Amino acid sequence: MSDKGSIVIDLKFERRQIDAALANAFKGHTVLRADDAGADLAEARYAVLWKPDLDLFRRAPKLEILFSGGAGVDGILAVPGLPDLPIVRFVDESLTVRMSEWVVLQALTHLRQVPTYLKQQREHLWNELAQPEAKDLTVGVMGLGVLGQDSVRKLKIMGFDVIGWSRSKKEIDGVETFDAQGLDAFLAKTDILVGLLPLTDDTRGIFNAVLFGKLRQGGALAKPVFINAGRGGSQVEGDLVVALETGILGGASLDVFEREPLGAESPLWDMDNVVITPHAASASDVSALFRTVEAQIARYEAGEPLAHVVDRVTGY
Amino acid sequence: MSDKGSIVIDLKFERRQIDAALANAFKGHTVLRADDAGADLAEARYAVLWKPDLDLFRRAPKLEILFSGGAGVDGILAVPGLPDLPIVRFVDESLTVRMSEWVVLQALTHLRQVPTYLKQQREHLWNELAQPEAKDLTVGVMGLGVLGQDSVRKLKIMGFDVIGWSRSKKEIDGVETFDAQGLDAFLAKTDILVGLLPLTDDTRGIFNAVLFGKLRQGGALAKPVFINAGRGGSQVEGDLVVALETGILGGASLDVFEREPLGAESPLWDMDNVVITPHAASASDVSALFRTVEAQIARYEAGEPLAHVVDRVTGY
Repeated sequence: MSDKGSIVIDLKFERRQIDAALANAFKGHTVLRADDAGADLAEARYAVLWKPDLDLFRRAPKLEILFSGGAGVDGILAVPGLPDLPIVRFVDESLTVRMSEWVVLQALTHLRQVPTYLKQQREHLWNELAQPEAKDLTVGVMGLGVLGQDSVRKLKIMGFDVIGWSRSKKEIDGVETFDAQGLDAFLAKTDILVGLLPLTDDTRGIFNAVLFGKLRQGGALAKPVFINAGRGGSQVEGDLVVALETGILGGASLDVFEREPLGAESPLWDMDNVVITPHAASASDVSALFRTVEAQIARYEAGEPLAHVVDRVTGY
Repeated sequence: MSDKGSIVIDLKFERRQIDAALANAFKGHTVLRADDAGADLAEARYAVLWKPDLDLFRRAPKLEILFSGGAGVDGILAVPGLPDLPIVRFVDESLTVRMSEWVVLQALTHLRQVPTYLKQQREHLWNELAQPEAKDLTVGVMGLGVLGQDSVRKLKIMGFDVIGWSRSKKEIDGVETFDAQGLDAFLAKTDILVGLLPLTDDTRGIFNAVLFGKLRQGGALAKPVFINAGRGGSQVEGDLVVALETGILGGASLDVFEREPLGAESPLWDMDNVVITPHAASASDVSALFRTVEAQIARYEAGEPLAHVVDRVTGY
């Protein structure tokens, strides 16, 4: 028996990745695997979870803390029979950096008219397009947590005019921000909308026909663009398809979908000016995940408070 | 007759753009158009040039300063019968910001495996790829003038490891830099090579088979990537095609070519992992050009020195 509390791992990631990361993690702890049917989880104190098994909490009744394997915790909060334990979000620099890479890439892709240039390339066509500058476009970021704030900072450095929205107002140096009451004013200024929202009761279906219709028309790219790397449940895909077909939206970049994987029959795959990635904007690095969990457990066992504990009322 | 010196415009840009920009430029100056065959250019003191007419210097024998309409001046330096006058480069924030947009977009495009994801999207295929982080890749920027330094700074902020090369060594805070003697050491560390070099006798054909063969193999993207937004004359396109075909290079983003427009028969158009744009990375904004020329003329007429004068020996 180890001095430190035992840990159960229930991540539906690639087994090989988890094995490699475990080789250098959790020294002094007993590590148990939920996918090992014979494992005795009765004494496990900590769980690292992503899409947990439904019987996990029955097998491991003495858990004290649940660590999420991803930035979002809506999947864990939805598990039937979830015990009333602290849930800790995964916040890590690598997760943040990767997300900002994807967000900046997508904003630049629409600014620099990449879909049109790629079409011209396929046709061997040399034709320069009129090109607004980044400062001519306002990027509106919805969700101003760790990920949102890093994206805001990097979009600004690339030259975009950037504004931010969150349910309760956040102050960010040099950036105009809006809260729940200011949503319409925020949307009316936004040429490129970036969704980095958690999935909660408040955000489910928030990106719908009514919202798309409030985005600025006639900006430097003529029509607004929708970029979503938050959660698929926050977008109404039927409304999104109609908005793209009818020109309410001029383009989109989507990493998340109502149902994942996105069905092969979805009209989004083939739409001009729509970029699709398979929930790959910011993949959790398992080694980084285990490092942050290890550090949090060490703090907890030393009697210090946990960081990034989920508020069950707001859902993030 | 005006108080201020008269200016001849000989830019092969879209006429409508020039007309619009002239409406608000050069107050107090007489402005002449070289494309107006009847214009009397005999007293013109200043010329704003891009691909100038061969008879311009015969028609305008009293010119004192030549202002380049673009960042590169190799086109002007190559004009037969070019008089021995100061040539002023166009350096402008909008030119710099646009170039960095394009460079960062291309670096992220290769980091985030956009060509492969777009292919999967065409096939309606949901498949997440293993994804290195920006810090796992070293971007080597060749050319550390105003454009190169801004790209270096923004690539670093996006998380890339960045190193720089210039003919004579430049010091940049927090960035390892190399000079002519250090070229091989620079290339051996470089996963993504960014060309922002002027076209001079030293740089003509510098991006050739020998150089491509010295780039790092086996980095986080397995094979090196070549990005060029400097001048087409610095790349040997035959060598580039072979390097891409044989896997010496894993990808490329090209905005400039030996001959422009790039011929429809070039194999580059159809290559996997090659992005082509039509010399559009950083289009000169005519209004910004005229503002900077106006400011430089005002300084010159007040007896102050001109900025960004081309060194005829180095060629930039």
